[in-house]
Amino acid sequence: MQQLNERIQNEGLNLGRGILKVDSFLNHQVDPALMLAVGQTLARQFDDLPITKVLTAEISGITPAVMTALELGVPVVYARKQKPITMPKQVYRQMAPSHTKGHNVELLVSPEFLGADDTVLIIDDFLATGNTISALIQICQQAQATVLGVGTVIEKRFEGGRERLESIGLRVRSAAIIEKMTASEIILAKDSSS
Amino acid sequence: MQQLNERIQNEGLNLGRGILKVDSFLNHQVDPALMLAVGQTLARQFDDLPITKVLTAEISGITPAVMTALELGVPVVYARKQKPITMPKQVYRQMAPSHTKGHNVELLVSPEFLGADDTVLIIDDFLATGNTISALIQICQQAQATVLGVGTVIEKRFEGGRERLESIGLRVRSAAIIEKMTASEIILAKDSSS
Repeated sequence: MQQLNERIQNEGLNLGRGILKVDSFLNHQVDPALMLAVGQTLARQFDDLPITKVLTAEISGITPAVMTALELGVPVVYARKQKPITMPKQVYRQMAPSHTKGHNVELLVSPEFLGADDTVLIIDDFLATGNTISALIQICQQAQATVLGVGTVIEKRFEGGRERLESIGLRVRSAAIIEKMTASEIILAKDSSS
Repeated sequence: MQQLNERIQNEGLNLGRGILKVDSFLNHQVDPALMLAVGQTLARQFDDLPITKVLTAEISGITPAVMTALELGVPVVYARKQKPITMPKQVYRQMAPSHTKGHNVELLVSPEFLGADDTVLIIDDFLATGNTISALIQICQQAQATVLGVGTVIEKRFEGGRERLESIGLRVRSAAIIEKMTASEIILAKDSSS
């Protein structure tokens, strides 16, 4: 996605240890029009599939998930990291090691909103090692829901997440793909829509 | 907003102590089309003002804030509750007592994305006592930004937040207003767009 690639090149900051700071349009400040375009781009990659629900994890996955789901005409469920008092006692829960926080987080989804009838598209802000997304897949397994695909805003191609997800038969699409990050440059894949 | 009022009546659950569960379209599962309509409704209430930025607090404020900002054509900043490693050392920070969590949370905003040139619209999911929104106003004061208004998805009219915010000269608008909640019914204001 050309527009997203340009924003990453112009505003992205490599903080080292594989961490890309894109706080100006995705992770702290959000550009709604860019995110709508990202959602439309991702939705087009999955609109041949009978998706009933988009699943993401709070916090930064919410905006791209909502924009993708808006385009697909389905609801979003965002996995919580802390149990709110509105959640029932019995929930689906899965630990996920956090790439940027350095500790494990638990993801929680209520059985009220994910079940055996759901065919799920998982959307997240980043695809790196695929740890968070794998935890969301395990939550879908607990709920007996079927995962049909994974879409992310920015994929760090060199961290192996795509191989891990494709090896279990999932369609993986990212709006932008980073091939390599060095101290001085971010190298993006040319065709980043597939 | 008629569409939102109906969803609250049909799906809202009064859990007691003033807590309304609307996890089916706002706080765990999100209805993107409804949230787009909410954003359009809220944006219309403020489109005569020179808003440069929408400010909200993670987590459930993000979707309505992004949809309102999409309509107004401005960026959103969402205050973080935990400091991510991408955030600079010096940040604006303010404690806010949490209504539903029973303990204080800290809200953090980077000076990179909020400053003296900004005229701000604050958007959140709920207006109850106004504690979270007051903390966001104090963050704007730290940043020397000007707050022009406050928009929320659901206002609990009986908790006093509106009086508190209007008393400091802010325009306050909510997409739905709950006048009263009893064990058996949720009483909504008829004209909920102002």
